[in-house]
Amino acid sequence: MSNSEENTGRAERHQRRMQRKKEVVDARIDAAQDERGLLLVLTGNGKGKSSSAFGMVARALGHGLKAGVAQFIKGRSDTGEEAFFRAQGVPWLVLGEGFTWETQNLARDIQTAQQGWEQVRAFFRDETIDLVVLDELTYPLKYGWLELDAVLGDLRTRPANQHVVITGRAAPPDLRAAADTVSELHDEKHAFRAGIKAQRGVDW
Amino acid sequence: MSNSEENTGRAERHQRRMQRKKEVVDARIDAAQDERGLLLVLTGNGKGKSSSAFGMVARALGHGLKAGVAQFIKGRSDTGEEAFFRAQGVPWLVLGEGFTWETQNLARDIQTAQQGWEQVRAFFRDETIDLVVLDELTYPLKYGWLELDAVLGDLRTRPANQHVVITGRAAPPDLRAAADTVSELHDEKHAFRAGIKAQRGVDW
Repeated sequence: MSNSEENTGRAERHQRRMQRKKEVVDARIDAAQDERGLLLVLTGNGKGKSSSAFGMVARALGHGLKAGVAQFIKGRSDTGEEAFFRAQGVPWLVLGEGFTWETQNLARDIQTAQQGWEQVRAFFRDETIDLVVLDELTYPLKYGWLELDAVLGDLRTRPANQHVVITGRAAPPDLRAAADTVSELHDEKHAFRAGIKAQRGVDW
Repeated sequence: MSNSEENTGRAERHQRRMQRKKEVVDARIDAAQDERGLLLVLTGNGKGKSSSAFGMVARALGHGLKAGVAQFIKGRSDTGEEAFFRAQGVPWLVLGEGFTWETQNLARDIQTAQQGWEQVRAFFRDETIDLVVLDELTYPLKYGWLELDAVLGDLRTRPANQHVVITGRAAPPDLRAAADTVSELHDEKHAFRAGIKAQRGVDW
């Protein structure tokens, strides 16, 4: 067989394989027809959870939709995402006072988280908000500042088409069970462990 | 022991535990002092890889940095991210012609990918671009339209402080080895499998 016959054979096999793949994919797309507000959870130790939520905010804004963001735990006040989306008119709540090992005051952390949650409930009552980001919500759940059952109950009261994205390590099992989509980010490698500090534009 | 003594004891134990945690975290932050352009890879089957890259674009813009995006494979021309970031002045290259099982033409796909890569090389020569997103780059690598060795060689020529984020399923081992940060998104649950179609604002 000549080189040119080999190439022709390779191209034809490729075309048949791709044709079968297209049929499978098209059938799956035809089968998925429902639309409704989703609960998405981004968890695990890997880098990229919060930035993924903020990318969805950009997507939503690009379609003329409205998004609201609440950050529960936050190490610094000068993040790029906050500056950027505030300038776009996105309602942006900062509800924590920094990581809990910075405050070292349990009673104050509980009070802060619960007052913050009241502001999130206002997002759930607002039919004009299409996407709500609850960034680092898993921490107040883990430390017991917020009760998961109450949070899940409030989530069920939101508008039927409102999407909610929750980020943070160690999402509890009942939160995963309630979610429509769960991605667990595995930390295969992180520059921080190689002595690279958190850098603006990628980490904050 | 009274309830109030129990509560005081709990608060004190919490404070001591958080104090120790703060010392460990502070020591780690002190140890990580290097800054340089990172290569970040977001891979795996889970939802959130591309949106995480786009969230980093928002972060970068929020700090007044400049970002450039190249999308290698793309199912549709009306995504929220493209509309949004183009309106912000972000250079945005669409280099694919849709998923390969749509074109079913191997020779054309190779040519398209290689012409596209030439445009990416222009990003690597541009000192003013702080962050480059190569969205879905793993597919042209997987299908052999681009050679990984050539891609890695070109990545090494970029400015020392330029960050690059690569997304897509099944990142090859040599790409992971070359990266500073690798997150593998595990698909624990996806609304698509429950019959929910891809929805604007979260999926595109």
